[in-house]
Amino acid sequence: MGTSISFGKFFLPGPTEVDPAVLRAMDRAVIGHRTSDLSSLLAEIDPMLRRIFRTERPVYVSSSSATGFMEAGVRNGVRRRALALVNGAFSERFRDLVTACGREVEVYDVEWGGAHDPEEVERRLRVGGFDSVTVVHSETSSGVLNPLRQIADAVRSAEHRVGEEILLLVDGVTSVGGGLVESGEWALDWILTGSQKALALPPGLAFGSASPRMLARAETLPGRGQYFDLLEFDRYWKKHQTPNTPAVHLLFALKTQMERIEAEGIEARAARHQAMARRCWSWVESTGAAHGLSLFAPEGARSLTVTAISLPTDLRGTEITAKLKRRGYTIGSGYGKLRDQTIRIGHMGDHTMEGLNQLLTELEEVLGE
Amino acid sequence: MGTSISFGKFFLPGPTEVDPAVLRAMDRAVIGHRTSDLSSLLAEIDPMLRRIFRTERPVYVSSSSATGFMEAGVRNGVRRRALALVNGAFSERFRDLVTACGREVEVYDVEWGGAHDPEEVERRLRVGGFDSVTVVHSETSSGVLNPLRQIADAVRSAEHRVGEEILLLVDGVTSVGGGLVESGEWALDWILTGSQKALALPPGLAFGSASPRMLARAETLPGRGQYFDLLEFDRYWKKHQTPNTPAVHLLFALKTQMERIEAEGIEARAARHQAMARRCWSWVESTGAAHGLSLFAPEGARSLTVTAISLPTDLRGTEITAKLKRRGYTIGSGYGKLRDQTIRIGHMGDHTMEGLNQLLTELEEVLGE
Repeated sequence: MGTSISFGKFFLPGPTEVDPAVLRAMDRAVIGHRTSDLSSLLAEIDPMLRRIFRTERPVYVSSSSATGFMEAGVRNGVRRRALALVNGAFSERFRDLVTACGREVEVYDVEWGGAHDPEEVERRLRVGGFDSVTVVHSETSSGVLNPLRQIADAVRSAEHRVGEEILLLVDGVTSVGGGLVESGEWALDWILTGSQKALALPPGLAFGSASPRMLARAETLPGRGQYFDLLEFDRYWKKHQTPNTPAVHLLFALKTQMERIEAEGIEARAARHQAMARRCWSWVESTGAAHGLSLFAPEGARSLTVTAISLPTDLRGTEITAKLKRRGYTIGSGYGKLRDQTIRIGHMGDHTMEGLNQLLTELEEVLGE
Repeated sequence: MGTSISFGKFFLPGPTEVDPAVLRAMDRAVIGHRTSDLSSLLAEIDPMLRRIFRTERPVYVSSSSATGFMEAGVRNGVRRRALALVNGAFSERFRDLVTACGREVEVYDVEWGGAHDPEEVERRLRVGGFDSVTVVHSETSSGVLNPLRQIADAVRSAEHRVGEEILLLVDGVTSVGGGLVESGEWALDWILTGSQKALALPPGLAFGSASPRMLARAETLPGRGQYFDLLEFDRYWKKHQTPNTPAVHLLFALKTQMERIEAEGIEARAARHQAMARRCWSWVESTGAAHGLSLFAPEGARSLTVTAISLPTDLRGTEITAKLKRRGYTIGSGYGKLRDQTIRIGHMGDHTMEGLNQLLTELEEVLGE
């Protein structure tokens, strides 16, 4: 069955297309999760995951979607009150999780399509009373990339001023494994992603890395539960195990894909993502513009993995996606309230410039119909 | 690759062996989780899951291990204080989850190998102050089956006496899909299982069904979070969706396995499990006894899916499992503190009487070495 699966026409901004070799890796007998075989597998994966997260810290593997590890960020990292940076659907989810876990939240709201201003982040934090910040690096709903490094600097600076620890909790769902996210250098306190985005794995796994002070705070927070308790993850990580029964077949797929990513090289992978993003933007600004299309995110704040494209009022996003579908191509319609006024292309994971060019050619034909 | 995977020699008490046809079902291109294709798949699965849970209530599908849905039981079902019935490693975990989620717990402790006495359950509850009970139906660590129906009756009776609502939260991990668990008739408030036990699926999914009063209580409990919020599961279940990105490939496997289970029939499946259990017990009491083996669980309280076998002092469990391994067979060593004094056979899922007999023949030879 695997050999008949094609590749190169599925450009959703997640789940992304999975290479047939990675799918085939799952067609394997189950193994016990407390065996040396599984520990060996996790031990092999570990340094590769850390290279992707660009950190010396452990990267934990959760059998859940990324939202589970978003919740882990809140349960282990927010003591009483967080500043939530909101500029799209997923940063709204992060905000909602803070209150869903019984904490207080203040929102620094930016309209969909905009990025957050690091200076404003610092200004708000300096008022005091915040112990954490939630932010989405690449907003999959709008194609906006937040200036994460500068936001991290702003948080450190505010922390220093108010003399209180403020943890930075980052949703890196469509950024980690696409662009280079310097989790270590930027000293992110919690950075998470899901398997089915830039890592081009089947959905069902989440990955996250915590700073030492994040773990220290977790120790002081009651009611963390068990499934998303980072101290449990850390304890088992030391044994190359997971706290609970993992989705073993997804780990088989993970190993195969990590090896493929290593073979390409992390920097080369990031360069490919950058090149695909630039190609997509320039296409929208030339060919697309001739049909009334424009980039939804402003220059300097565009995701390297997801491009949201604004449509003229006489074009409906769902019509375009349907027409492409009939040609065998899948892209995303707009997200939520942007459903009909935008379309979204996920140019990440294992997609190539050649594949992207073919998609754009098809899209041009659809626009000309 | 799939065609070369054999079946019939892997008797761990979980994960259980997965049929090659179910593994092959995962070798398929990913689909978006907000598509009509995925909703159709969940809609097809839904009545089959309810037949397995023997309830008219919805059965929710979680991309997590069963422990995640154990935690869901606590976060959505325990208001302030639970009575935890403990008689093994997994009921200890359920107990620990109550406190890990910031609730109080009182323990009704029975030694490993024993079952709980429904009358004692009622006696303890009548003192008052409990809003919930946690219980493990089939203790995978000891092979003990608790008298769930009678315990449910005892809880109802105590509830009636003290005039306070007491929810019954049940871990059905090695029972649902093996024996007949009458979730509806016994009015269980929360009953959960994992994919990799009697349902013989790859690990990574959990299933659970909640009573209306469980959902009503959840509404009154703050801090439920999002990933294990049963109200979210219920809201999305109505649309044949899941609240978060599911492990899509595990859902492909689920559909294939549900169809296989339907083809056999739920009652026939339960009868097969019962027959395998009886065969295993009688073997231990005859052939096994000649080598000093005995059943760890007492008569009338034996799991239909997992048999724990006590060894004479001159035999070590880990030696037996290693010898079987060299013959290509896998069974479980004892769990935790029973590691060397017991061995465990998982006779569940898709195993057959013929396969079990072959295993027992091998085991007899190993004992004679």
